[in-house]
Amino acid sequence: MTGPHVSGTTRLYPVLGDPVAQVRAPGLLNPLLAELGADALVVPVHVRPDALAEVVRGLMRAGNVDGLLVTVPHKAAVCALVDALGPAAAVTGTANAVRRTADGRLYAENFDGRGFVDGLTAAGRPLRDAHVFVAGAGGAGGAIAAAGLAAGAARVVLRDPDGARLAGLLGRLDARWPGRAGAAGPDDIGRADVVVNATPLGMRAADPLPFDPAAARPDAVVADVVMKPHETALLRAAAARGRRVHHGIHMLEQQVPAYREFFGWLRPDPAAAARKSGMA
Amino acid sequence: MTGPHVSGTTRLYPVLGDPVAQVRAPGLLNPLLAELGADALVVPVHVRPDALAEVVRGLMRAGNVDGLLVTVPHKAAVCALVDALGPAAAVTGTANAVRRTADGRLYAENFDGRGFVDGLTAAGRPLRDAHVFVAGAGGAGGAIAAAGLAAGAARVVLRDPDGARLAGLLGRLDARWPGRAGAAGPDDIGRADVVVNATPLGMRAADPLPFDPAAARPDAVVADVVMKPHETALLRAAAARGRRVHHGIHMLEQQVPAYREFFGWLRPDPAAAARKSGMA
Repeated sequence: MTGPHVSGTTRLYPVLGDPVAQVRAPGLLNPLLAELGADALVVPVHVRPDALAEVVRGLMRAGNVDGLLVTVPHKAAVCALVDALGPAAAVTGTANAVRRTADGRLYAENFDGRGFVDGLTAAGRPLRDAHVFVAGAGGAGGAIAAAGLAAGAARVVLRDPDGARLAGLLGRLDARWPGRAGAAGPDDIGRADVVVNATPLGMRAADPLPFDPAAARPDAVVADVVMKPHETALLRAAAARGRRVHHGIHMLEQQVPAYREFFGWLRPDPAAAARKSGMA
Repeated sequence: MTGPHVSGTTRLYPVLGDPVAQVRAPGLLNPLLAELGADALVVPVHVRPDALAEVVRGLMRAGNVDGLLVTVPHKAAVCALVDALGPAAAVTGTANAVRRTADGRLYAENFDGRGFVDGLTAAGRPLRDAHVFVAGAGGAGGAIAAAGLAAGAARVVLRDPDGARLAGLLGRLDARWPGRAGAAGPDDIGRADVVVNATPLGMRAADPLPFDPAAARPDAVVADVVMKPHETALLRAAAARGRRVHHGIHMLEQQVPAYREFFGWLRPDPAAAARKSGMA
């Protein structure tokens, strides 16, 4: 095992979650940062909901914390702690990335939806004209719905046991894309081209399935946003019934270009690379 | 360049300073943590004085932050932010390490002095019966004075432009070790066996010398607590005049056993090591 290359000059990008042990962002983004020659590190920070405000305030007052990644269950709550929201965050009411602006304000945006839609497109299932069923109207579900509508989905239906949360999201989606989003009825899974689990169900071995994948059409794609385990019980059940599956990791992988742009992780400067190699 | 081994399960030990770029703790302690098989990382956190309380509160509310290392200029201020002080922190009014106790309280202790004295002993200059001159009555200076007296120094004299800070420290030292600590007079450098810079002077190239090493006895040891640069202007000037020098890094190196004990960084558990290697 090689020791990490951390020194006093290292910049930090904490990823906040509860739990946090499952987050894939450090393993995905730190090799990229190393490849770019950036002296920066994504580190996990375990934050319970009642501590979120204090932890965000404390971290963003640190001079070498340039931004945050935010995951379950903090994606909605973090929006109340920043000064400005990007377009996807404004529509969904959730964010998964925060950075300082040049004038020191905190700016949050949500890249989950863009990552999810880009992942499906890369897998040969673009959402233009598609019918989409999404279980979960939280951060990931709202982001996927918004990005799907932005990508031209014909209809996106959502299901969530929290009726107020679902109604709030549907109102914002309908204001932006009138008549194309709605609450899922009992038969909607069977009508969809793509059925998505956007709930945390599947992170724990004892979780029930978020929905029965047997109810999906035989030609439907069954997608999960849960990344750990890679093969969730939902995806195993779907594959066992011959459905095409789409893993949670793709949503994150496809966000890498968006994070690079958002956080300003640029191509290596040849002069800086030479200095670095001279110091190694 | 190898990417760091950070995952969602990694525990964090932030080191707080202003500036923080010079801190050596990540480079010194992370290889040790890796060798111990600990999934833990020391990371720098840049904290300005007016942000210290918020940053400490935020970090210590994070579930995977098990402790803090504290350096200039926060060693005194941090004592007001914790629930209990160890013996060296209580005498010096400064601390450089904070951890949670089993009941969730914050406990701070100062290992600078122990590290400095152990470093001199390892270099063949134990402080028993010695006369010691210390420039600086801040965190490092107070810790060195207390540890020197605890190690049997005959007399420790200190100099500091902040008269109130100096008087406060001398009062606490005198209460614990009566009659052996005092304010340095004009000739005290020339009487000392060991002369120590415990101010930040020397971190910046433009800094003046904390004192003239030519005033020290030819057989005196000239020691510095500044670690970056390794060869401070003071130590270069002392060496040029034939004085024995003692580098700042030794104070930190010799604290490693104390940190291991304080933070509970134990020898690898063979069963855990086997599980780890099976997963690699």
